[in-house]
Amino acid sequence: MSEEILADVREFTARHLVPRQAYLDSLETAPLPIYQEFARTGAANWWLPKEYGGRGLSLVDGVDITSELSYGDAGAAFTLFISILGTTMVELYGSDELKERCLAPMGERGSFCATLGSEMAAGSELANIETTVTRDGNELVVTGEKYFSTNAGFADFLVVIARSSTDPDSYGAIVVPRDTPGVHVVKRWDMIGLRSSGTYQVSLRECRVPVGNALAGPGLRLLEIGLNASRILIATTALGISRRIRDLCLEYARDKRLRGAPLAANPVFAAKLGQMEMQIDVMRSHCRAAAREFDEIRESPDAAARLARQGTVKQAVTAKMFCGQAGWQVVDSGSQMFGGLGYTQESPIGKLMRDMRYISIVEGGDDVLRELVYKRYVVPGGRRT
Amino acid sequence: MSEEILADVREFTARHLVPRQAYLDSLETAPLPIYQEFARTGAANWWLPKEYGGRGLSLVDGVDITSELSYGDAGAAFTLFISILGTTMVELYGSDELKERCLAPMGERGSFCATLGSEMAAGSELANIETTVTRDGNELVVTGEKYFSTNAGFADFLVVIARSSTDPDSYGAIVVPRDTPGVHVVKRWDMIGLRSSGTYQVSLRECRVPVGNALAGPGLRLLEIGLNASRILIATTALGISRRIRDLCLEYARDKRLRGAPLAANPVFAAKLGQMEMQIDVMRSHCRAAAREFDEIRESPDAAARLARQGTVKQAVTAKMFCGQAGWQVVDSGSQMFGGLGYTQESPIGKLMRDMRYISIVEGGDDVLRELVYKRYVVPGGRRT
Amino acid sequence: MSEEILADVREFTARHLVPRQAYLDSLETAPLPIYQEFARTGAANWWLPKEYGGRGLSLVDGVDITSELSYGDAGAAFTLFISILGTTMVELYGSDELKERCLAPMGERGSFCATLGSEMAAGSELANIETTVTRDGNELVVTGEKYFSTNAGFADFLVVIARSSTDPDSYGAIVVPRDTPGVHVVKRWDMIGLRSSGTYQVSLRECRVPVGNALAGPGLRLLEIGLNASRILIATTALGISRRIRDLCLEYARDKRLRGAPLAANPVFAAKLGQMEMQIDVMRSHCRAAAREFDEIRESPDAAARLARQGTVKQAVTAKMFCGQAGWQVVDSGSQMFGGLGYTQESPIGKLMRDMRYISIVEGGDDVLRELVYKRYVVPGGRRT
Amino acid sequence: MSEEILADVREFTARHLVPRQAYLDSLETAPLPIYQEFARTGAANWWLPKEYGGRGLSLVDGVDITSELSYGDAGAAFTLFISILGTTMVELYGSDELKERCLAPMGERGSFCATLGSEMAAGSELANIETTVTRDGNELVVTGEKYFSTNAGFADFLVVIARSSTDPDSYGAIVVPRDTPGVHVVKRWDMIGLRSSGTYQVSLRECRVPVGNALAGPGLRLLEIGLNASRILIATTALGISRRIRDLCLEYARDKRLRGAPLAANPVFAAKLGQMEMQIDVMRSHCRAAAREFDEIRESPDAAARLARQGTVKQAVTAKMFCGQAGWQVVDSGSQMFGGLGYTQESPIGKLMRDMRYISIVEGGDDVLRELVYKRYVVPGGRRT
Repeated sequence: MSEEILADVREFTARHLVPRQAYLDSLETAPLPIYQEFARTGAANWWLPKEYGGRGLSLVDGVDITSELSYGDAGAAFTLFISILGTTMVELYGSDELKERCLAPMGERGSFCATLGSEMAAGSELANIETTVTRDGNELVVTGEKYFSTNAGFADFLVVIARSSTDPDSYGAIVVPRDTPGVHVVKRWDMIGLRSSGTYQVSLRECRVPVGNALAGPGLRLLEIGLNASRILIATTALGISRRIRDLCLEYARDKRLRGAPLAANPVFAAKLGQMEMQIDVMRSHCRAAAREFDEIRESPDAAARLARQGTVKQAVTAKMFCGQAGWQVVDSGSQMFGGLGYTQESPIGKLMRDMRYISIVEGGDDVLRELVYKRYVVPGGRRT
Repeated sequence: MSEEILADVREFTARHLVPRQAYLDSLETAPLPIYQEFARTGAANWWLPKEYGGRGLSLVDGVDITSELSYGDAGAAFTLFISILGTTMVELYGSDELKERCLAPMGERGSFCATLGSEMAAGSELANIETTVTRDGNELVVTGEKYFSTNAGFADFLVVIARSSTDPDSYGAIVVPRDTPGVHVVKRWDMIGLRSSGTYQVSLRECRVPVGNALAGPGLRLLEIGLNASRILIATTALGISRRIRDLCLEYARDKRLRGAPLAANPVFAAKLGQMEMQIDVMRSHCRAAAREFDEIRESPDAAARLARQGTVKQAVTAKMFCGQAGWQVVDSGSQMFGGLGYTQESPIGKLMRDMRYISIVEGGDDVLRELVYKRYVVPGGRRT
Repeated sequence: MSEEILADVREFTARHLVPRQAYLDSLETAPLPIYQEFARTGAANWWLPKEYGGRGLSLVDGVDITSELSYGDAGAAFTLFISILGTTMVELYGSDELKERCLAPMGERGSFCATLGSEMAAGSELANIETTVTRDGNELVVTGEKYFSTNAGFADFLVVIARSSTDPDSYGAIVVPRDTPGVHVVKRWDMIGLRSSGTYQVSLRECRVPVGNALAGPGLRLLEIGLNASRILIATTALGISRRIRDLCLEYARDKRLRGAPLAANPVFAAKLGQMEMQIDVMRSHCRAAAREFDEIRESPDAAARLARQGTVKQAVTAKMFCGQAGWQVVDSGSQMFGGLGYTQESPIGKLMRDMRYISIVEGGDDVLRELVYKRYVVPGGRRT
Repeated sequence: MSEEILADVREFTARHLVPRQAYLDSLETAPLPIYQEFARTGAANWWLPKEYGGRGLSLVDGVDITSELSYGDAGAAFTLFISILGTTMVELYGSDELKERCLAPMGERGSFCATLGSEMAAGSELANIETTVTRDGNELVVTGEKYFSTNAGFADFLVVIARSSTDPDSYGAIVVPRDTPGVHVVKRWDMIGLRSSGTYQVSLRECRVPVGNALAGPGLRLLEIGLNASRILIATTALGISRRIRDLCLEYARDKRLRGAPLAANPVFAAKLGQMEMQIDVMRSHCRAAAREFDEIRESPDAAARLARQGTVKQAVTAKMFCGQAGWQVVDSGSQMFGGLGYTQESPIGKLMRDMRYISIVEGGDDVLRELVYKRYVVPGGRRT
């Protein structure tokens, strides 16, 4: 990545996000003008291949960009990177025609896509989803109720995970343009944090798309593959939020006096910030290592086949687990640092606490992920690395 | 305590607090009608001596009552018990006339008092406060800017900690009726939690009161004595919130299915709830033990003198430290239990998380209290208990 | 309890335990002469009723005594209190004749009893034990292999949990004198800590005892009842060890200099000791609360029946869980306090670390206990206390 | 690194370390024959440049090798890598002649060097050391008492940190051959773990060496530079020990049955192992990232100058902090996994617990390192990465 792009992202963050904490925390709807502003930097959807108008940046670069954006606002970061979940699936398993149709506008306009996986009853067991896809001549008909889908309210297209109506053990991933008749946004969820993002409940009633809109491969596995990218970037938001907390603490401690000296000179304060810095350091290392692993697979000539075999990348999962946990420790420490003021809306720490909580919840809670890691990576095989 | 009172408190909690989480979390101002409803149970200011119209209940009883109230809403609990900080000082160190004047209306009407200690610059170092008290004939004149004071907006009277204008090493605690000219509520703080309570910034400009309104003894020490009671009840709110979280988890897990069985039958869920129950058990034991210690001193014939010598009771401090920490672990676990729904306003868990945070912040953060415990109780003398 | 007894225990601890850490940590066999020395104080088996030559002390008193003993050496404390597990069963469910026969010598001589529950294959699932008891005329014949039994090597008698050979769903608790033919100590376990105690593997081959040696009631339930007492005292050893660690830290910090001042004046050190003191305070409260609950039941006229209905007392379980966890935090902090010296045998901290570990392991690991608490106390009905 | 070397190290570990836990844990002196066996693999002192007979491997390679060795035995790993602390200083800041003289034998024979920094009174404040170096013609005379020095008992040479006798603010690092008259090993410390390593107290009485034995640069800074390498490898031993604990748990759980199924199928067990695997993953990422940073500097043309300016590399410090803390969590979890057996010497878990403890103690306790990170990396400069 050229340093220029990162500098542009930093500049955007410093101008549009950092100074607007209360505003970004108060929104009833996603602040699209701010995201259009981000598109003007040319960095929107930075991971898309250059041929589709993107910057062709790696996931390691994505970690650095996301760390910057989430330093400013985690909801903005989430909104700006979460399309990678859907586009990764489309890029790897969509036809050329589909890619051109879906990705080029996103590269050009900085617009969004959404992935529709979760359903109310299925919870963490996606194999239980009830949304169906039925073939009808040259068309696919998709019907179902989807629970949580970020960006669906303003996305260009939706990648819908659905079960075959003829073979209940078979799942597909189908691209449904947002303006397809039958697509209905039921509501925007009123989230406790990330309030500059939009997560929606969506109803699909006999939505018809050409058969070419189906991605090639089993839907649940393709979803796993896309989640590798998004989980790493979700993990990275913990890094960005933590860096912000550290800087807020330091800023406060330079002015605040304790026993006639700045709080910043207090050994207990120093110990806490030293511990925080360690956690930040480790989060960054592991997010980058996970991204590097994913990039290496992506850059191999048989990336699609390798990922189809492997599905979940262990480090993507452990990154989200670790950063959610370490980030929560940073929040615990940080939210006690500002005295009574930290318990008021005059300090941004309450927002950062609520924002941080999402890391350990979205795209698989820790209980689900611990079990996944155990079954996929601990149980199999002889002596272990 | 007669079981009747506790039953009344439970009934009040079940009717007026438990079902109104979203309402109680949304308030711009303290919901006084609800507190008047509580007064109708006859339990308001339950700790006041019967001679002043109270119920004369012990602090151990107060722990049980507070656990119930905060099961319903921590902000309501806080509002309803925090007057104990001021009344404890008045009861022990006020003249008979002052007690009659201050406490009888509170006993009769279930009204409130507020304590004004904190100031912006002084932070945790109360010895640095700049509010002054000056004697002028038979009057005391109090002037200063107070930062955080709960209930001050609607209290009958304020107990103000002030420094002598003639002897800067001397501090007093002075009762200032709320309607004294010069008392001005600058603003209600916009808190991140406890939104059914009101904490205010208050300005005092040449407020004149009779000299008899001064409590007998050094103000900072008297404040310490009052804090023993309030810190134990603040600690107890962690117990109430934790009990509520446990019950919400269990309720959710009875309906939610995982692999064809209720989540409540899942061993990982069971392990988490077992751990939570342990923490609840221990919080209760320690809050009661701390309250029992305080009650024993209060019931001794020379209570005022003993407390004047001792000031802070260790267990009051360790209760607040422990419950804040254990409660935060309960919140961490509980807030991950509801999947994506737990990240929305449709679940009360976000409110409970914000409410819980106050325990470790108000009336002394853990850093301040760890140092206090160390200096007062660890460093001194010989082989230690 | 008369203060005299506690003073005697303190004196014993100070003379025979505190100064002999390395010796007590090095033993191949339990140091019986030291325990005979303890018997000379008259405090041995302090909980036995006066009619059997004991002191008739409550479990709350036992908490205070155990805290003192384990301040000196956890292995000694464990050896000296663990007989309570067996004697509680005998006292409550043995015939008068059996009580006289078993308890009086223990009261008189300060000797020991042992409980034989665990078996290799059964692990934490005691219902799977394979030791059998068969009635043969007026005798019971007990056969089996018992895994971990503390004090069995030098006990007067053993309380053996066995399964009926005729009804595999029925279990008994049978008193087997240690010198019964067929009782064979296979080995003393080489433990990583508590090296002044002895835990043994015991083989029972057709051990014959009179039918009157069977306690009245279902064996697994009687065991639960006895475990209430021993678990609370095991929990209490965490309190004693933690107090010792705190004092060692403080002693070290008074001499050790950091930046020209004693380490004891360092704010980070103070914060750690303040946190430790909090944990000690809470451990003590909860052990005492659990003991008080048990004492209250014991003192009721229908204690045996009540306990038979209730079995496990929740606070006994949560005390062991909590103290094991809090004690481990104290060890973590304390074992880092002495620099490199703390990693050598010249410091007692390594021994204290190994000793502390047993709390969370013996008489039910935390996983087992969390599940027990959940099933017995969380799942059952209605709104919860 | 060729996979061959790593395979050789694995083979050595599997044959000589893994099966000999009790032996390696029991030693009164370092088992040199085992280390000679390691030298036969050709991997001894793997980091030394090829020109001195080493393999010229990077620190990233060293992380992989150390992870393998410490999987087998942390004491062996520590013994085999800790020479890197001294050789890094010599390589970067020694004259060609000195390098040839010191490093070539180590490359050839797989022998050892030791670094003598710590002193009893100085503790973590190395600027307070009292060992002096005095110039006497063409010789340097070194005198002092050094406290903890690993490998000093059998090293070829010692790198001694000493204070100038003429300028107390100036420190040097001087190479003192082990057989220099006046070098006296006072004792081998009796450590609580790492018992296959040897750490010694050493007395230096007027040890005379040529002036060319002094390294070029300020001694305390050179020590910092060497510590970058050793701290990263110490951190890595936590990775190796953790991997071993995970495998022991899994092995145990495959045989152990709970409710009629292998423990390995139990969800709570799975959750613990999934969490452990996450911690292992993150440790590995961060150790490698830290090593990569160090390698990048080492490979730059002006490595010596850059390191002289920078001294401590942040990630080396945060790696040791993080791995010590995460490793301790793995130990806490793992040591509770084996029931009562885990509390006996029949299980290796007690040894692994004691071994793990050293990570957070040697080469700077966490308190020292948190402060270092804060002062060097958090306080300076504007907006932070």
